[in-house]
Amino acid sequence: MEGFNLELSDQPESLEQILVDCRDTLKYGVRTGHPRFFNQLSTGLDIIGLAGEWLTSTANTNMFTYEIAPVFVLMEQLTLKKMREIVGWPNGEGDGIFSPGGAISNMYSVMIARYKHFPEVKTKGMTAAPRLVLFTSEHSHYSIKKASAALGFGTENLILLSTDERGRVIPADLEAKVIDAKKRGCVPLFVNATAGSTVYGAFDPINEIADICEKYNMWLHVDGAWGGGLLMSRKHRHKLNGVERANSVTWNPHKMMGVPLQCSAILVREKGLLQGCNSMCAGYLFQPDKQYDVTYDTGDKAIQCGRHVDIFKFWLMWKAKGTIGFEKHIDRCLELSEYLYNKIKNREGYVMVFQGQPQHTNVCFWYLPPNLRGMPEGDEKRQRLHKVAPKIKAMMMECGTTMVGYQPQGDKVNFFRMVISNPAATRSDIDFLIDEIERLGPGFIKSAQTF
Amino acid sequence: MEGFNLELSDQPESLEQILVDCRDTLKYGVRTGHPRFFNQLSTGLDIIGLAGEWLTSTANTNMFTYEIAPVFVLMEQLTLKKMREIVGWPNGEGDGIFSPGGAISNMYSVMIARYKHFPEVKTKGMTAAPRLVLFTSEHSHYSIKKASAALGFGTENLILLSTDERGRVIPADLEAKVIDAKKRGCVPLFVNATAGSTVYGAFDPINEIADICEKYNMWLHVDGAWGGGLLMSRKHRHKLNGVERANSVTWNPHKMMGVPLQCSAILVREKGLLQGCNSMCAGYLFQPDKQYDVTYDTGDKAIQCGRHVDIFKFWLMWKAKGTIGFEKHIDRCLELSEYLYNKIKNREGYVMVFQGQPQHTNVCFWYLPPNLRGMPEGDEKRQRLHKVAPKIKAMMMECGTTMVGYQPQGDKVNFFRMVISNPAATRSDIDFLIDEIERLGPGFIKSAQTF
Repeated sequence: MEGFNLELSDQPESLEQILVDCRDTLKYGVRTGHPRFFNQLSTGLDIIGLAGEWLTSTANTNMFTYEIAPVFVLMEQLTLKKMREIVGWPNGEGDGIFSPGGAISNMYSVMIARYKHFPEVKTKGMTAAPRLVLFTSEHSHYSIKKASAALGFGTENLILLSTDERGRVIPADLEAKVIDAKKRGCVPLFVNATAGSTVYGAFDPINEIADICEKYNMWLHVDGAWGGGLLMSRKHRHKLNGVERANSVTWNPHKMMGVPLQCSAILVREKGLLQGCNSMCAGYLFQPDKQYDVTYDTGDKAIQCGRHVDIFKFWLMWKAKGTIGFEKHIDRCLELSEYLYNKIKNREGYVMVFQGQPQHTNVCFWYLPPNLRGMPEGDEKRQRLHKVAPKIKAMMMECGTTMVGYQPQGDKVNFFRMVISNPAATRSDIDFLIDEIERLGPGFIKSAQTF
Repeated sequence: MEGFNLELSDQPESLEQILVDCRDTLKYGVRTGHPRFFNQLSTGLDIIGLAGEWLTSTANTNMFTYEIAPVFVLMEQLTLKKMREIVGWPNGEGDGIFSPGGAISNMYSVMIARYKHFPEVKTKGMTAAPRLVLFTSEHSHYSIKKASAALGFGTENLILLSTDERGRVIPADLEAKVIDAKKRGCVPLFVNATAGSTVYGAFDPINEIADICEKYNMWLHVDGAWGGGLLMSRKHRHKLNGVERANSVTWNPHKMMGVPLQCSAILVREKGLLQGCNSMCAGYLFQPDKQYDVTYDTGDKAIQCGRHVDIFKFWLMWKAKGTIGFEKHIDRCLELSEYLYNKIKNREGYVMVFQGQPQHTNVCFWYLPPNLRGMPEGDEKRQRLHKVAPKIKAMMMECGTTMVGYQPQGDKVNFFRMVISNPAATRSDIDFLIDEIERLGPGFIKSAQTF
């Protein structure tokens, strides 16, 4: 806040000052496109995607009607169909829409599941349905929990599933909990299987979950916000085996595919549900007597009215890279994470959070400064270790050299979560990260004496 | 679809072809920035706003944490405070967030109202609450209905209020319906007052509605998606008198203030509710042990996880225009609509949909081709008149000269809804629209013999 006048005034500023403001905004911002920015699932800056976004801003239109976004609406339709083909639904049939992020896409999936099984909730509300329960893993994204609160299910009716040591749902635990819920008089409605969890990058076993969903007539959603991109890779798409059995899929091209933010799709296998669930037939906006086929209008499928054009940058990148370009990018990022994993798995001072090669680009590890390495296991060591990652990260940020995420998980104290999605990242950037941890970690610990 | 290869392939296209694709996209698109594009509430293309959007795309970051969007988060905080001051809340206190459009902002208001009065719904679901009812006018935006369906209230529990002939809620009707609902055992929770309705541009009488809300302990939301901009004008802000009594306000700078799409704010008078309603405390994303004050992180207030940076273009425009610049723009658009109203109110062949000067820039009118003018009132005339606006609009679009909206409303057949929000529009553009209606209307009617 110092040295950057953010205040808004009655009087206009000069154009010179506006340029200074722009420069300052970039100067004090975070360079998310830098190959040493590893902090989020969305990194990098694709230059074609950026050009697409600039054109989109210039067109400044809205996806809700074909009439004012004819080209973008067609591109969206065609791209969604292509994505459904890649998911494996026959002829790419089904439906879908681009939404403002994975959390909203996941929210759509819960809404659509409810509409499919209890359509009367749309008009009569949740009290018209029996007590519905939803299932998701304890490693899944918190948006499922947000959806359960927002949509009127209540977070207590979201049942968390246990996972194995690598963060994958244990199918037997799902079945046991379904049976238990039924015994308690609840109706199991919806199961979320995560394809690429946020922290571990774990892929739930979709086929085994799908078997249980079929047996108990539950909606199967696959949250592939992070892992969906692997469908583009012949080498890695097996990790999503069974995805074609899902009723709906979230897939965020703005994560693993490097599309500029925001770009998230919700794909639905059965046609008509998205429209049925959300349509209100607002005559003042979606006039049936327009001069064109109004089934091209997308607005009444959405929970939004106006909707940002998120498709063009993605479509343009696909044109420019081809499907094989995305495949190369994804294979390369996974190779890089394998390189990191191999580099640190037996390195002194490093402990992997889970054993075995990561399924996605997530590599989770603890770094132990030298003075922690000889300590006996126990609470004191845990407490000290818990502070290491935050401190090292804070120093990285102060130095401005690199950024990487950390978090606790369950009973595990803070550990680093390294992810790679930037096509510009190279092995030397990975080496730099490790060097930086080892430069900052021991030094700080020595000087500050807090460990 | 002809002559523009939209298909996505395995192989990349050349850069030359990408440039052709970009040109074609613009060529077949709709020029929403053109001063004769009157089709939507969002029009125009502010060049500073566009520059802001380009910088935003380049920064390619995400609003959920201060850590990766420090400047944008501060700008958002400061701008929301300024907007709350303009609403009239003491010292601009309260809370708020930018959301992906007015429909989502309105959805937030319903969620927050529910959380305020029945916080247990968050954990236990809608079955933990009594039967809740919501109120909104029959002229209000359909997003309130979408929210009532999505959030589990059910559209039947959204009670529509009658309006006067100019589309403004009749407060006595609200009170009667509240009393009736209570008699039926329902709990009145939420009232939406529209400030600038989509079709008529009507402003509901906020003060009288606020009296009733206070009396019956209901949440008052003001949907100022379209009309909120008038708060920037000393001349016109009286139309929102009483807005400071609202519990929440939707205000879309991307409409009347000419900010590029998308830019919508939900403002909340009571601090803490937004966080309380939506927070899930996801430890893996919002680590409490970061090096900075984590109350700057906005992610846990939102129903989204990742959130697009919508603030910068708006902040930059505000800097460049000053508050007085927005005021001038708004006053000018309202003057232009007054010019249109005065031009056609007594003109042969025109019938105003409602009497008196419009409150916003919406001017609603029927155009009667010469052969309809002498016809006796009745069904046949109505049926013919219903077809006039769609046909004239279709011809405008085929000629590529101008675009203007039309729709039916209640028992009124299709009429034109003219709106002005583009600062580039002038009286000559208004004159052009009328000339075009009069050029196309009679000509078509003569040749096609369908009226």
